[in-house]
Amino acid sequence: MRIIVDVLGGDNSPNAVILGAVNALEAADDFSIILSGDEWTIKEQLQVIGYVGDRITVLHAPEEISCNESPTVAIKRKKESSLVKALRAVADGEADAIVSAGSTGAVLAGATLIVKRIKGILRPGLAPILPSEKGPFMLIDCGANVDCKPEYLQQFAIMGSAYMSKVMGIENPRVGLINNGAESKKGNELTKATYSILEETPGINFVGNAEAREIMTGAFDVLVCDGFVGNVVLKYTEGLAMSLVNMLKVELMGDTRSKLGAAISKPAYRRFKKRMDYTEYGGAPLLGINGGIIKAHGSSDAKAIKMAILQAREYLVGNVTETISTYLADAAVSIDKDN
Amino acid sequence: MRIIVDVLGGDNSPNAVILGAVNALEAADDFSIILSGDEWTIKEQLQVIGYVGDRITVLHAPEEISCNESPTVAIKRKKESSLVKALRAVADGEADAIVSAGSTGAVLAGATLIVKRIKGILRPGLAPILPSEKGPFMLIDCGANVDCKPEYLQQFAIMGSAYMSKVMGIENPRVGLINNGAESKKGNELTKATYSILEETPGINFVGNAEAREIMTGAFDVLVCDGFVGNVVLKYTEGLAMSLVNMLKVELMGDTRSKLGAAISKPAYRRFKKRMDYTEYGGAPLLGINGGIIKAHGSSDAKAIKMAILQAREYLVGNVTETISTYLADAAVSIDKDN
Repeated sequence: MRIIVDVLGGDNSPNAVILGAVNALEAADDFSIILSGDEWTIKEQLQVIGYVGDRITVLHAPEEISCNESPTVAIKRKKESSLVKALRAVADGEADAIVSAGSTGAVLAGATLIVKRIKGILRPGLAPILPSEKGPFMLIDCGANVDCKPEYLQQFAIMGSAYMSKVMGIENPRVGLINNGAESKKGNELTKATYSILEETPGINFVGNAEAREIMTGAFDVLVCDGFVGNVVLKYTEGLAMSLVNMLKVELMGDTRSKLGAAISKPAYRRFKKRMDYTEYGGAPLLGINGGIIKAHGSSDAKAIKMAILQAREYLVGNVTETISTYLADAAVSIDKDN
Repeated sequence: MRIIVDVLGGDNSPNAVILGAVNALEAADDFSIILSGDEWTIKEQLQVIGYVGDRITVLHAPEEISCNESPTVAIKRKKESSLVKALRAVADGEADAIVSAGSTGAVLAGATLIVKRIKGILRPGLAPILPSEKGPFMLIDCGANVDCKPEYLQQFAIMGSAYMSKVMGIENPRVGLINNGAESKKGNELTKATYSILEETPGINFVGNAEAREIMTGAFDVLVCDGFVGNVVLKYTEGLAMSLVNMLKVELMGDTRSKLGAAISKPAYRRFKKRMDYTEYGGAPLLGINGGIIKAHGSSDAKAIKMAILQAREYLVGNVTETISTYLADAAVSIDKDN
């Protein structure tokens, strides 16, 4: 297995990305890494880290795509960029999966334009893994498609089920549809139409509508929604968690007694922080593409990159691309008209 | 000012509702209350509480509308219900505002069918007040309209601005549009179209797109979205806050040292809980109706009912209905075709 890593994307690139790659190698010995980026910088950094093995190779790609560029234009023009060259390597079969902490828009556009969709898939879905009270769950789609048709959501359910069973080892993952009420008749035009389609989709375990208050309870393994709603839920999770922690902090620092108690409770706060830490869960797979595509968080540190690389490895070990194809054929929902 | 209270709605009706009404009277002496519900039950409960004043009258309405009925059917058929009779009283000018903790769907349908929209308003918006890091903000719409047109969102912005300036005393309230990115070009079809309309709406202070991670930071006074997204945000706020608190609790109880610290920090936890307590902010006004409509939370206790009644009073003191009409005329966005 060969995983290619875009070292020029993200807030902490390239050094944290390179370090994360080196550290990932220690976790398993069945894969190699290609680092895509400026050759000289990468080699220098590998020397600084002291890496001397033969499991890392370098793909020279000096250009960088920033978050401020139009993704489609950048993908088409910047042929020497670390992202485009890495995606090209996956498309050409020189690598099996890619990890990038770069511009989400560019990763989405590039994966679709260069690596291409799995046959029958209408739209790929960006699908981060989030913590719940009982264990991780997948939220799909989180921004790849802001205007959706019911058939896209149906495929998100299929792809999410494939991933959660193959990579996370969840038997018969429970699929929920994010809706404005638990009753089957609730919803806007999109979710009402999606509900009836999901009910009749073979091979998935659709358990019904998910009210937003249940998102974090652990009652679902795959939560399906359009990319606009998913983006709101994803960013609100980060923002609300941070705001609540800030508000609690203000109160804990508000009187001497509480302050003392907070100092004593430090081990619990540390565990809580670890549990809420997105880096524990790696990045967000972009499902529906002919290869493993892991979008790491833009602010990823070395540890987050390491986890994202190991997630790419698990994607490959689990044969997720092939499983999605099989599930799609089984559900007989491959619709080619949009391809 | 006469505020009519539907005593048969909500999880804790009728006793908590009646007690809340009695307690509300102590906070100001410029309003009276009509209790809509079974006369005998109300009078008995008033006797239990020991209320002997003359500021409470009773409107006998023995029927109850439950959350399991079709709202529109229930409103049309149950003419003797506490909700329908209360709404009728507002429509007939016998009361100026209503507070109900009953079925949200029935309150929305009933207000629109019986009390009717303000002239020029296309759709009313359900608009709860939520806590942020810096102070309360309004989220509009939260479920009255799951499929929206840009013009509805424009009117939500106008109505929210009227309420926040008149009732909450915020000068020039900052209006944000919930979107999947801060940049002006971001969005789905609805939010892209809404953005350009909001930019050109006179009389409101539109400050741009609000990414979901900013919802709780206090950067906006009025957050505008369609009712589907608003419902997700509202319920996720409750659910995520509860899940995070549960997760933190598990960790705080996870070792003896942390447990001790938590006991010592109790004053801070108590303040935090109070700050997050939705009952502090009353209920959700339904804006755009010819009268004050306050939807109290279904699980309201006596204190939440009291706060909702005082909120109805503030709605009337602030002349919100009239202000909305004025703002609408000023913005010249009154569109009658849908009325």
